[in-house]
Amino acid sequence: MSTTTGTVHLVGAGPGDPELLTVKARRLLDEADVILHDSLVGDEVVESFPDHATVVHTGKRADGERTSQAEINDTMVRESRTGNDVVRLKGGDPTVFGRGGEEAEYLARHGIWFEIVPGVTSAIAAGEVAGIPATHRNCSSTLTVVTGHEDPTKDDTSLDWEALAANVEAGGTLVILMGVGRLSDNVAALSSHGLDTGTPVAMVERATLPDERVVTGTLDTVIERARTADVRPPAVTIVGDVVRVRETVEHCLASATGSFLASWTSPPSAVDEIESANRGE
Amino acid sequence: MSTTTGTVHLVGAGPGDPELLTVKARRLLDEADVILHDSLVGDEVVESFPDHATVVHTGKRADGERTSQAEINDTMVRESRTGNDVVRLKGGDPTVFGRGGEEAEYLARHGIWFEIVPGVTSAIAAGEVAGIPATHRNCSSTLTVVTGHEDPTKDDTSLDWEALAANVEAGGTLVILMGVGRLSDNVAALSSHGLDTGTPVAMVERATLPDERVVTGTLDTVIERARTADVRPPAVTIVGDVVRVRETVEHCLASATGSFLASWTSPPSAVDEIESANRGE
Repeated sequence: MSTTTGTVHLVGAGPGDPELLTVKARRLLDEADVILHDSLVGDEVVESFPDHATVVHTGKRADGERTSQAEINDTMVRESRTGNDVVRLKGGDPTVFGRGGEEAEYLARHGIWFEIVPGVTSAIAAGEVAGIPATHRNCSSTLTVVTGHEDPTKDDTSLDWEALAANVEAGGTLVILMGVGRLSDNVAALSSHGLDTGTPVAMVERATLPDERVVTGTLDTVIERARTADVRPPAVTIVGDVVRVRETVEHCLASATGSFLASWTSPPSAVDEIESANRGE
Repeated sequence: MSTTTGTVHLVGAGPGDPELLTVKARRLLDEADVILHDSLVGDEVVESFPDHATVVHTGKRADGERTSQAEINDTMVRESRTGNDVVRLKGGDPTVFGRGGEEAEYLARHGIWFEIVPGVTSAIAAGEVAGIPATHRNCSSTLTVVTGHEDPTKDDTSLDWEALAANVEAGGTLVILMGVGRLSDNVAALSSHGLDTGTPVAMVERATLPDERVVTGTLDTVIERARTADVRPPAVTIVGDVVRVRETVEHCLASATGSFLASWTSPPSAVDEIESANRGE
């Protein structure tokens, strides 16, 4: 008898709200023998894992260290070879800066069956739940996503900030993931490459979670506003004219978080009331 | 007694596979009084709508005409004012070239409660199910998404093809949605702005559906290969070094379509077998 091997599913968990898992992700989690998840997977999602599954939190080990990529790769191969179905669960989408591609290559080199199960990326979802569309017929015809944790002043940065600034100037949306720590550097890189300092900017902290927060400003003001609001990771930064859409729609935004508000007698008229309502206060 | 108004949910249906709906989209559809959906929503998703819902196919009317945006807007407002919960369902994600932003603005101007429910965008999913990651640590640090149906030779094109080409040259991934009709024009625009003609390109037709097809080549060869394969809309075009990842992983790709293959005794060694297995042949 041949040994039956399991499959590794590289799965996106979405931005945090457990209802933003895909139906397929939900099914694969419920059926999984082994689940390896990173720190960006929402707490409520982690709490929903089935009791029968062996769960490995790759962002944190018992000794306080992070699990190395080599250990993650070894575990995926070893468990699938014993016939276990493995879900490798990543916050957002598995290949939008999630190393899903690298893990797929490792699995393929070792002859392990795998699939990539797309997820809702926070790059798009964070703006949407705050009333900011990714693109807009009148003001944005491209969407560009980067990570902001590289040092833009280093010679070996792989980002072409001139091209990024040009894309926004030409009417594009730029989304910066993981950009809280280097916000000043990234803003400076965009300004120095000619992006108008009046360009609207939004930061969405803990998007789709109950304690989500939104800060808006311009390239000129966002650093100060983020400092005042004490914006912390994880947060998504959105640069471009689409940010202005929020002003025109937020008074009717039924839900800025994953929890859906039921129907109302009529929309409150004051923005303050709505902000409270959105937060379930 | 005040009249209770309904909410309009601007919902992403994902790329086509009904299992790539989010859990929230599935729930909202099951609870909806009225569903307005466009032509890019997968057939199986449409077949899953509950019997109690009034369904409007906005891409096709009884008289053969498309429903106008004004009619869609009017219907959303009218139905929600009578207390109905309305799901406006769009293929992929609702604001990635889906006019979700414009519809949100219309609803807000009319005092209608709404929310945007993010979906899995085909811009990312199409590559993933074909073994092509959106980004990759070694070869792609940006993801840019555009639509390809604009004429790049027209003066009023809103796309800056020079900046787009520069982003790919700098190690970025460019995804072109709806680009089958103008493939030659878009390839020419990238070449004339200095993008290496050896840059890998993939086209994924009907991504995540059972009859999905993948064509790969380079900027130099993709037009001829797409013609030979008779690629038809809807298809997603991916430009950049990430396309090369497919070659190294596809022999272990368990599922290039929404249908998940169960575990195997061992991965087949010949690519042909796998391609067949992926298609359930």
